[in-house]
Amino acid sequence: MKRIADSTVRRLSAYLRFLEDFEARGLSTISSDELARQGGTTSAQVRKDLSFFGSFGKRGLGYSVPELSTRLREILGLGREWRVIILGAGKIGAALAHYEGFRQRGFQILAAYDSNPEKVGRKLEGIPVRGIAHLERDVAKEKPDIAVITVPADAAQQTLDLVVRAGIKAALNFAPTQLHAPADVTVKTVNMAMELEGLSFALVNR
Amino acid sequence: MKRIADSTVRRLSAYLRFLEDFEARGLSTISSDELARQGGTTSAQVRKDLSFFGSFGKRGLGYSVPELSTRLREILGLGREWRVIILGAGKIGAALAHYEGFRQRGFQILAAYDSNPEKVGRKLEGIPVRGIAHLERDVAKEKPDIAVITVPADAAQQTLDLVVRAGIKAALNFAPTQLHAPADVTVKTVNMAMELEGLSFALVNR
Repeated sequence: MKRIADSTVRRLSAYLRFLEDFEARGLSTISSDELARQGGTTSAQVRKDLSFFGSFGKRGLGYSVPELSTRLREILGLGREWRVIILGAGKIGAALAHYEGFRQRGFQILAAYDSNPEKVGRKLEGIPVRGIAHLERDVAKEKPDIAVITVPADAAQQTLDLVVRAGIKAALNFAPTQLHAPADVTVKTVNMAMELEGLSFALVNR
Repeated sequence: MKRIADSTVRRLSAYLRFLEDFEARGLSTISSDELARQGGTTSAQVRKDLSFFGSFGKRGLGYSVPELSTRLREILGLGREWRVIILGAGKIGAALAHYEGFRQRGFQILAAYDSNPEKVGRKLEGIPVRGIAHLERDVAKEKPDIAVITVPADAAQQTLDLVVRAGIKAALNFAPTQLHAPADVTVKTVNMAMELEGLSFALVNR
């Protein structure tokens, strides 16, 4: 399959949310215009995004809401449970462990890891905090799919290196720094300041 | 100016980070190929993104690192301080109040607001927690630019309505729900589950 841009994947996630909203309201079809309007994009963009994954919808009739949402869940890998660990039992780690949106989507948090012996053995929002020294052994046994990195910026690369060495192939990084990983490991960085920059841009360019 | 897509603004924020990294290393020029490589995009995309804002760079010489980074800071509205308030003094609010990346970028958090009288009058990571009933009065006086909404999903729309009524024109929403605002108010939703879906997509489609 052709390489799909991150921005396309983000839009697919957004479309799925609108479709689920439609399903909850008992609506059975949706037009590309309506999906575009809700997503703040164009109907041409919606059709292009979906065309990567085969043919959907009938000209003039729109998309079947249940069919398209099922297909989007498959495309996004949401048909199964994903096992997640959190690296760094600090404030961001606690907020994520508490976050209700993860479980709803099938992302199950197994454990948090920290290097601070005062945190190890405690619970973080109901999730066990383990010593970072046990990471490799635990990963071999429990096979988590995704590591979420919430350590400070200056410890983030070495933490990712541990995660990679343990065999995990996907990481979500919250540290405000760019990380490097081998080509077979997918790393996404969530930069909170970048989100605010989208707003400062809007405020100065309106 | 033409309407600029959110995904373009995100890439501009990312380019600025790479340029700052280059500046810190004392490099004076950068090619669109190098910016593209770091950003996981194409050089044609880089040139297109920058062309929205005028002409940059010289063919064959690349972009001047200090000039382009200065210009990107201007475009993103980063030449000034932005005043931010947090709605919801819970775990996500605490993580954001603590987040070091905001101050670095000129986003100053003035206060947090909560409806829970047990939280009001306390501090959240050094930031005062105030009663939500005082929002309108405080906004009139202190003129914050951006509201960050971290209340539970079922309270998010009514919180945004209060923010809008108080006269704030930009909001960053962390509640896992779609919010509606008048056309002159910019709302961006940060969906943590959507970030994880980018990884589950990568894991099933590699």
